[in-house]
Amino acid sequence: MIKAGIIGSTGYAGQELVRLLMQHKDAEIVWYGSRSYIDQKYYEVFHNMFEIVDADCMDDNMDELAEKADVIFTATPQGLCSSLVSEEVLSKTKIIDLSADFRIKDADRYEEWYGIRHPSREFIKEAVYGLCEINREDVKKARLIANPGCYPTCSILSIYPLAKEGLIDMNTVIIDAKSGTSGAGRGAKVNNLYCEVNENIKAYGVASHRHTPEIEDQLGYACGQPVVLNFTPHLVPMNRGILVTAYASLKEEVTYEQVKDIYDSYYKEETFVRVLPEGVCPETRWVEGSNYVDVNFKIDPRTNRVIMMGAMDNLVKGAAGQAVQNMNLMFGLDETEGLNLVPMFP
Amino acid sequence: MIKAGIIGSTGYAGQELVRLLMQHKDAEIVWYGSRSYIDQKYYEVFHNMFEIVDADCMDDNMDELAEKADVIFTATPQGLCSSLVSEEVLSKTKIIDLSADFRIKDADRYEEWYGIRHPSREFIKEAVYGLCEINREDVKKARLIANPGCYPTCSILSIYPLAKEGLIDMNTVIIDAKSGTSGAGRGAKVNNLYCEVNENIKAYGVASHRHTPEIEDQLGYACGQPVVLNFTPHLVPMNRGILVTAYASLKEEVTYEQVKDIYDSYYKEETFVRVLPEGVCPETRWVEGSNYVDVNFKIDPRTNRVIMMGAMDNLVKGAAGQAVQNMNLMFGLDETEGLNLVPMFP
Amino acid sequence: MIKAGIIGSTGYAGQELVRLLMQHKDAEIVWYGSRSYIDQKYYEVFHNMFEIVDADCMDDNMDELAEKADVIFTATPQGLCSSLVSEEVLSKTKIIDLSADFRIKDADRYEEWYGIRHPSREFIKEAVYGLCEINREDVKKARLIANPGCYPTCSILSIYPLAKEGLIDMNTVIIDAKSGTSGAGRGAKVNNLYCEVNENIKAYGVASHRHTPEIEDQLGYACGQPVVLNFTPHLVPMNRGILVTAYASLKEEVTYEQVKDIYDSYYKEETFVRVLPEGVCPETRWVEGSNYVDVNFKIDPRTNRVIMMGAMDNLVKGAAGQAVQNMNLMFGLDETEGLNLVPMFP
Amino acid sequence: MIKAGIIGSTGYAGQELVRLLMQHKDAEIVWYGSRSYIDQKYYEVFHNMFEIVDADCMDDNMDELAEKADVIFTATPQGLCSSLVSEEVLSKTKIIDLSADFRIKDADRYEEWYGIRHPSREFIKEAVYGLCEINREDVKKARLIANPGCYPTCSILSIYPLAKEGLIDMNTVIIDAKSGTSGAGRGAKVNNLYCEVNENIKAYGVASHRHTPEIEDQLGYACGQPVVLNFTPHLVPMNRGILVTAYASLKEEVTYEQVKDIYDSYYKEETFVRVLPEGVCPETRWVEGSNYVDVNFKIDPRTNRVIMMGAMDNLVKGAAGQAVQNMNLMFGLDETEGLNLVPMFP
Repeated sequence: MIKAGIIGSTGYAGQELVRLLMQHKDAEIVWYGSRSYIDQKYYEVFHNMFEIVDADCMDDNMDELAEKADVIFTATPQGLCSSLVSEEVLSKTKIIDLSADFRIKDADRYEEWYGIRHPSREFIKEAVYGLCEINREDVKKARLIANPGCYPTCSILSIYPLAKEGLIDMNTVIIDAKSGTSGAGRGAKVNNLYCEVNENIKAYGVASHRHTPEIEDQLGYACGQPVVLNFTPHLVPMNRGILVTAYASLKEEVTYEQVKDIYDSYYKEETFVRVLPEGVCPETRWVEGSNYVDVNFKIDPRTNRVIMMGAMDNLVKGAAGQAVQNMNLMFGLDETEGLNLVPMFP
Repeated sequence: MIKAGIIGSTGYAGQELVRLLMQHKDAEIVWYGSRSYIDQKYYEVFHNMFEIVDADCMDDNMDELAEKADVIFTATPQGLCSSLVSEEVLSKTKIIDLSADFRIKDADRYEEWYGIRHPSREFIKEAVYGLCEINREDVKKARLIANPGCYPTCSILSIYPLAKEGLIDMNTVIIDAKSGTSGAGRGAKVNNLYCEVNENIKAYGVASHRHTPEIEDQLGYACGQPVVLNFTPHLVPMNRGILVTAYASLKEEVTYEQVKDIYDSYYKEETFVRVLPEGVCPETRWVEGSNYVDVNFKIDPRTNRVIMMGAMDNLVKGAAGQAVQNMNLMFGLDETEGLNLVPMFP
Repeated sequence: MIKAGIIGSTGYAGQELVRLLMQHKDAEIVWYGSRSYIDQKYYEVFHNMFEIVDADCMDDNMDELAEKADVIFTATPQGLCSSLVSEEVLSKTKIIDLSADFRIKDADRYEEWYGIRHPSREFIKEAVYGLCEINREDVKKARLIANPGCYPTCSILSIYPLAKEGLIDMNTVIIDAKSGTSGAGRGAKVNNLYCEVNENIKAYGVASHRHTPEIEDQLGYACGQPVVLNFTPHLVPMNRGILVTAYASLKEEVTYEQVKDIYDSYYKEETFVRVLPEGVCPETRWVEGSNYVDVNFKIDPRTNRVIMMGAMDNLVKGAAGQAVQNMNLMFGLDETEGLNLVPMFP
Repeated sequence: MIKAGIIGSTGYAGQELVRLLMQHKDAEIVWYGSRSYIDQKYYEVFHNMFEIVDADCMDDNMDELAEKADVIFTATPQGLCSSLVSEEVLSKTKIIDLSADFRIKDADRYEEWYGIRHPSREFIKEAVYGLCEINREDVKKARLIANPGCYPTCSILSIYPLAKEGLIDMNTVIIDAKSGTSGAGRGAKVNNLYCEVNENIKAYGVASHRHTPEIEDQLGYACGQPVVLNFTPHLVPMNRGILVTAYASLKEEVTYEQVKDIYDSYYKEETFVRVLPEGVCPETRWVEGSNYVDVNFKIDPRTNRVIMMGAMDNLVKGAAGQAVQNMNLMFGLDETEGLNLVPMFP
């Protein structure tokens, strides 16, 4: 039985981790970290857990946790995990960091986009970017996982095959993304109140969102050259779900079948990436509650562009589900253990 | 492995049955009935099932199904199951009917409220009302289950202990219920369009809703006398969830502890009924996707009434989940098999 | 031109007042009070007002306001208006208080339910309860208006005719109300975040909500005896709208026509109360953005109860619209000036 | 008093026309056309109109209407208006067609994208594309107005100044648009049911949506050369609102101030186009219920692209409001008459 500790268990991603781990047959949670709710019953914060979780919320204490847990999930704001990690901690336990601290290999670039100093640069190189479908073998051997961001997961998986195969002009990539509101976190902010989000759609972080360098880096590794692109996230009045609509110019004329073959060659064996049938656009309703990413594409011969689309649940494949998938790989379990979740509709 | 057939698998309740049975380790679906989508891939109707269900939709054929299936679920409008059931069918297979056909023991009363003739009155007596927490032993021996309605399940479980114990004046019971829109079905009707339901709340079926006699009958059995009550359903702009707020006058002065003890004595051993801590009102968000019913009560000394409240997911405990719970009992399985679903929030 | 000042102009009700007064041909706003946003442009708080309102937010200063304004609207939490009002202020200007401070004639009762001391009891008697349809003549002569609460407005108007005419047993009145989330205010609270409210319905303030005594008082005046009743509010995932479903036992057998005649006799001449045709239930979507209250009723001969229903926009007739209606009466204008708003659907 | 007739008054756009015209001081509606609801009271279809509109729904009869009405609005599917228009009709009355029939000057192109034959090509040339801000003088003299589509209105107004001024490379234009569900119409379709739209976002009509040629044509006129672009609409779970996020490469380096000056030079005098302050992104909540289009832009020096954004209410400026604006111009009224609507929030 894998003993798991969660730092930041009372955010939306942390709570989703609890939901998934409660249904995982080889893991148990030994620490419900939450600085905001110390000593309160976890089920008093999330009443769905009544009669399911009886534990109290605990303070963030990574050193103590390292003694107790085989794996620590940090579902906390940027800067926290990197300030707590140490060689001693990593010698005792594994860490799956759901924050951005170890996603960007260039620490200066991290500091520039995130506006904070990185307190433990020495671990950046070791950290494995935990996009399982791409870095599976490295994940298996890792002590420290940088769990990918929600937008990057969906964006990268939608574009990766065509970037890797050199089919698209990487200077023309534009990603227009749309997210449900759980992605904005559980902090009490006027802008996230029901009446502010409901009946509204808006772009935010235009040309400046922090997930941009993460996406650029990964697609850059795929195509073998630096990538600079536009990424525009939007806030949608729904709880869960991310939809990515990405545009790029094709380098040469290709047929539907050729592109479909490429996607299939990358994802046919992947449990959690579904390449949809021709003409079926990904929709967030079809993946809700599950670890799937649905992808598809459309070639526009008029403009010689390809439109690449992806849909997933931001809290599952975009956060907690992928973290569990990483855990499974790190501990030699079946990658899908605890993640065979049929999407819940409606 | 229990072979299950579903007639009406492309409605919301039918699809939820598929979701639950796909995650049930002792059952497999052998028939996806859907008169509307015959010969189409099931996943073309519900894309969440892509790469999960590969079967085609089949016509409704209970005779053929009886040969193939150990249990048949009918998730169809009233009148269909009762027109297809026969001694021959029941000699070969078990039936769990999610419609209202066998819920009302008095056939005249059924015909009066539903406005249709009952074509197989001879099976009404045999049918067991499948509210597992109340009729568990009878369910275990049944061939034909009348799976309770969504509103009745939530209403009855909220009120039952106080009705049974004689604490409330049954002539004063008023049930004000609120339901998400999946309860209205997947038929293409203007009134159920997004723009008609969103940003709206309305009562409907006031003093005339068909679930009224079902609730009255069951509470009547509990208190040992005929019950006549008011039941008012409302349509709420959300996908899933039923909330019941019920009112009744107390026959005598009681304390919180006394009433709490009564609820506990009925539900402490029940996995799927959670009696909430004092002061915590049931909310639909805390049960979504799960088979739980959360109940609680508040005594109002000013009016000498007790307000009884319940929340559940109308598609799970209110339909498909309860049907699986019945199946588990009928086949001697652990009652919770396939139903240990942690509520999904948000 | 009536000069109007608003204290609390950056809450939802305050902002709705701005919307309505901007479209009122005989009024202009001279003061946008908002302690939270002092010196910020009003349109920076509410971007819908860009190029419509150019003013800055001002501190709460009733003395200065009394010099400048012919009427002051206080759209603030309880306790503020009553702490600022004085004979001097009232000698210079009129006050329409959207808070609860002057709604309850019995100051002890106010203090008990609201849990605060009333700092200006001497004005309670003078204050007129501004439910225009009932107290029209008194409103016209008032200096100080207690603008009714949202739930009370809808509840009272739904029940008033039958209470006044003695048709119903006042000891049996139960009010089950449902409100959109703007009624919860614009404060940054976790419980009002989008993901907490969306896909959820809950009761709150059960047997203890502060609007209870207000409703009881007014219905008590109507029937000529003290009234004690149950009032249960619910939070609905929508921005605007209140729906009231009220239950009471009929004192004697009555026909639909008799009850309809009573409602018509009270409301036929009222612009803002619409008695719906037989069988049509009030729905909040049909009144959104307008000052209408839609009411109707259903007699249930089985239980000898009448179900009384009402729907309105909580921010218009339940707050800002009714405040403007009161202003119109107080200044001798056409009662409907600025309020001829066609409900906006969808 | 302008006598207005509406063909198609029971769709969402038609009903919005009724709402706006009921609040217009110089117009009255003389014909509520609705083939689906002939002889029913209009308020039975839309209960918000109870006690506001007493008329019955009438059949579509343009010849009879031409005798009675000074202006006919056709809020109907493509193909209807073009099949009813004639020289005789146009000699008696003006027509504002909210469908696409007369928007595309090249009839072959219309037929190709819409898949139907155009039955009255002879009127295409005469028809004026009623985007008032661009074609104001032509609108004033027109007999036949092609009222712009919802997506095109928002897209064109967002991009027009930079296209016209030659600042952007028109071969790089990509428009990613998001719309509320009222844009999908009031037809009873499974895909538009509440439970299908709620908690979901999807792209549709990818690389094939019919509004594409309309946008291309108008932007082509602006820049003086044919334009081919990508336009991707998305369906958002909200009633009203369109948001456009458009991307294009800048031809040369420009500053924020330069681009701002260009937008201001086009729109400073325009009542209904608001160029937002620097850094404020358009959001649909701030324009709901009004005739405003909010636009803004962001220069991305990293990619040398400009992101152009626009938000409006699809039923007002995107349909009925613009139609009224056109009517005002055609009849020599103040362009804003009946359209001084303060956006309703929340």
